[in-house]
Amino acid sequence: MSRLRTDQAPSRMGERVTLAGWMHNWRDMGKFGFLVLRDGAGTFQVVLDDESEMDKLRGLQFESVLEVEGEVKPEPRAPGGAELHDCRVTVISPVLEPLPFEVNKKEFKPGLAVFLDNAPLGLRHPEKRALFRISAELMAGYREYLSQNGFVEIQSPKIVGSATESGANVFEIDYFGRPAYLAQSPQFYKQIMVGVFERVFEVGPVFRAEKHHTARHTNEYVSLDVEMGFIKDHTDVMAVLTGVMRHIFGRIATARAEEVELLQIKVPAVGEPIPSLRFPDAQQLIFERYGEDCRGEPDLAPQHEVWLCEYAEKELGSEFLFITHYPTSKRPFYTMPDDEDPTLTQGFDLLFRGCEVVTGGQRIHRYDQLLENAHKWGINPDDIAGYLLAFKFGMPPHGGFAVGLERLLMQLAGLGNLREATLFPRDVERLAP
Amino acid sequence: MSRLRTDQAPSRMGERVTLAGWMHNWRDMGKFGFLVLRDGAGTFQVVLDDESEMDKLRGLQFESVLEVEGEVKPEPRAPGGAELHDCRVTVISPVLEPLPFEVNKKEFKPGLAVFLDNAPLGLRHPEKRALFRISAELMAGYREYLSQNGFVEIQSPKIVGSATESGANVFEIDYFGRPAYLAQSPQFYKQIMVGVFERVFEVGPVFRAEKHHTARHTNEYVSLDVEMGFIKDHTDVMAVLTGVMRHIFGRIATARAEEVELLQIKVPAVGEPIPSLRFPDAQQLIFERYGEDCRGEPDLAPQHEVWLCEYAEKELGSEFLFITHYPTSKRPFYTMPDDEDPTLTQGFDLLFRGCEVVTGGQRIHRYDQLLENAHKWGINPDDIAGYLLAFKFGMPPHGGFAVGLERLLMQLAGLGNLREATLFPRDVERLAP
Repeated sequence: MSRLRTDQAPSRMGERVTLAGWMHNWRDMGKFGFLVLRDGAGTFQVVLDDESEMDKLRGLQFESVLEVEGEVKPEPRAPGGAELHDCRVTVISPVLEPLPFEVNKKEFKPGLAVFLDNAPLGLRHPEKRALFRISAELMAGYREYLSQNGFVEIQSPKIVGSATESGANVFEIDYFGRPAYLAQSPQFYKQIMVGVFERVFEVGPVFRAEKHHTARHTNEYVSLDVEMGFIKDHTDVMAVLTGVMRHIFGRIATARAEEVELLQIKVPAVGEPIPSLRFPDAQQLIFERYGEDCRGEPDLAPQHEVWLCEYAEKELGSEFLFITHYPTSKRPFYTMPDDEDPTLTQGFDLLFRGCEVVTGGQRIHRYDQLLENAHKWGINPDDIAGYLLAFKFGMPPHGGFAVGLERLLMQLAGLGNLREATLFPRDVERLAP
Repeated sequence: MSRLRTDQAPSRMGERVTLAGWMHNWRDMGKFGFLVLRDGAGTFQVVLDDESEMDKLRGLQFESVLEVEGEVKPEPRAPGGAELHDCRVTVISPVLEPLPFEVNKKEFKPGLAVFLDNAPLGLRHPEKRALFRISAELMAGYREYLSQNGFVEIQSPKIVGSATESGANVFEIDYFGRPAYLAQSPQFYKQIMVGVFERVFEVGPVFRAEKHHTARHTNEYVSLDVEMGFIKDHTDVMAVLTGVMRHIFGRIATARAEEVELLQIKVPAVGEPIPSLRFPDAQQLIFERYGEDCRGEPDLAPQHEVWLCEYAEKELGSEFLFITHYPTSKRPFYTMPDDEDPTLTQGFDLLFRGCEVVTGGQRIHRYDQLLENAHKWGINPDDIAGYLLAFKFGMPPHGGFAVGLERLLMQLAGLGNLREATLFPRDVERLAP
């Protein structure tokens, strides 16, 4: 008899079926017992009342892998409205060692370090499963929207020959005896590919050798990248990003409704347009409303982002806020300066619930201007020869953005630490599992 | 006037529109000239007959970026059945330096090294664009089939703390002063995640520090990974892979029909089932049909794969062929040994048109058996503690496979070198662009 998944069983009322999964829960009442079997689709209740069958489970720990053959009977109180009776149990993989923590309780107890050390077990908790199903849906929604809008998916190399994109914080590799580096972003490649496809996107890992110990940074994360040509200015890019966000959250709300409810996630509304503040105006607003004078500073601090989002939610009714025109000094050499004030750029960030989740902007597209900026930033043109080649042979006005997948998930689910939104996080201390 | 893409213009017959793109071709006939404008959607013919407009193009090289405003008029001989007349040209990014090779001729001339050195330009050739659009479609078809069949997408880390999966050929990273490594595959992580989601897939880069100089290897490629639980044996995995392949090629044939025609690709039929040979039988067949006695050797050589595919096509009518039961000595420690002959495994390869494109198999799922094999293979269990944890806490019978994206594209398009199927290849010599 071929095995069914738990969500298929309720439709087989009265039939004998075979299920298989993990021993999610087991309550031994003496003469009978309730087993909850968990598989990829969900859970199913199994009633055991035969002494020899019950004996097979006695002495086993939760998470043992079992196969159970039995008859599907209606039971309104059980999940799915059915349970399995008159069962025969086969133990496929017994678990004999006690679990370091429980994965079947609503309240999930272990601290972050203990959880991460035991992630292969901890990720089996229904809340963790729900979280990373939502993560998969974020990626799927992202790709779906872009594919529908003429963007072509690319895969750019992660091993690069020079470390010049932003100059620092790169991991060095021993590449057959010579140095190479891990790409901090697909930036150069996605720009090059605008020359080929006009509109491109990529989903892939990026690497940052930053020694920070904050709750919102790790050293490897998944970047959702976009780059597009023939734009008027950065606002065209912001419009596509707004469409992406609306599509993603619309899809989460419908396709992952069950997980959203389990995690008590509030799916945000995405306004059209998302409100926007120029960087100097944002600093002025912080000064006026919150009394901190950060005017003239080249970047926003985390607390500033919190304040700005508080303002946007209360005054503008939006959980999202664009900040545009970041100072030139804090943006990479390829960022398009503002037409009117060249100390500012046509670069933007998207803030969501108090934290930056996207960085983007318009890029310089004229070869001579890009070369001049490279010199100003102290970059040797020979180190970026391949990148410059695309510009020498004709690039249109273009721009793009990069969404941090785990950041977005963290903010969506209201998590306190980026590591909770990362399947197997990498930080200064952690390289395993 | 907002810019249209070239494929939108034919529906605006009689209207004045603005197009923008690259100067794909320009024939100056003196009193008039024909400009072919290329953008992300395709090409469009533009007729110039005004001296001052034509002067703007004189002295420019191909690939200059232009904006052209004009009236759409019917012209049956032009692509799309229309062309632009009475035009005003704006030069957005002039190209002044002669191109190292042409990207607008049907025959694509540069040798591989020259092409790769100038990939940002060369990839703009219509045949290259078609090739990498097909690559994007391969990925999309892969994800679509798996998502429809209950698989959840994961993103596993590429920086790993120990280099033990296959023991050698890993790139070492300087990770804040201590050694770390680039993942050769998501193998351990996808297996761990079977414990969480039962069925998972991943699309991501993998890294192999192999010094080979062959036409079918590079040092970084894109791996399409699957892992699934509660299987009977490796044949369940082969059935899913067969479904994946049928879906991908069905989608390519319909969604990318234009590119398939341009590249003269023969989209393969995928039989149900794909024929299958046991490894020892494959060697016997080579001996009998081709006279080379490779019986007893632990692996197949490239020529053997060519012969086996020739046999499968001629005798079995299939361009695909499974080889199963590879010897234990040539497979990783986690491979499930064959029930009847433990010197063989329940591992398989999928050959396509003379070359291996997929490797897969059933894995060991019992903790004690896996631990015993790790010892046999000389692996220190401490180095794979996180991986072993998943097994200690209950793993079902499972297996999976990994498709090499570029390999599949190379074989589909009949290319002679894997580098031609890779956007920006990395090999022992090449780290740029």
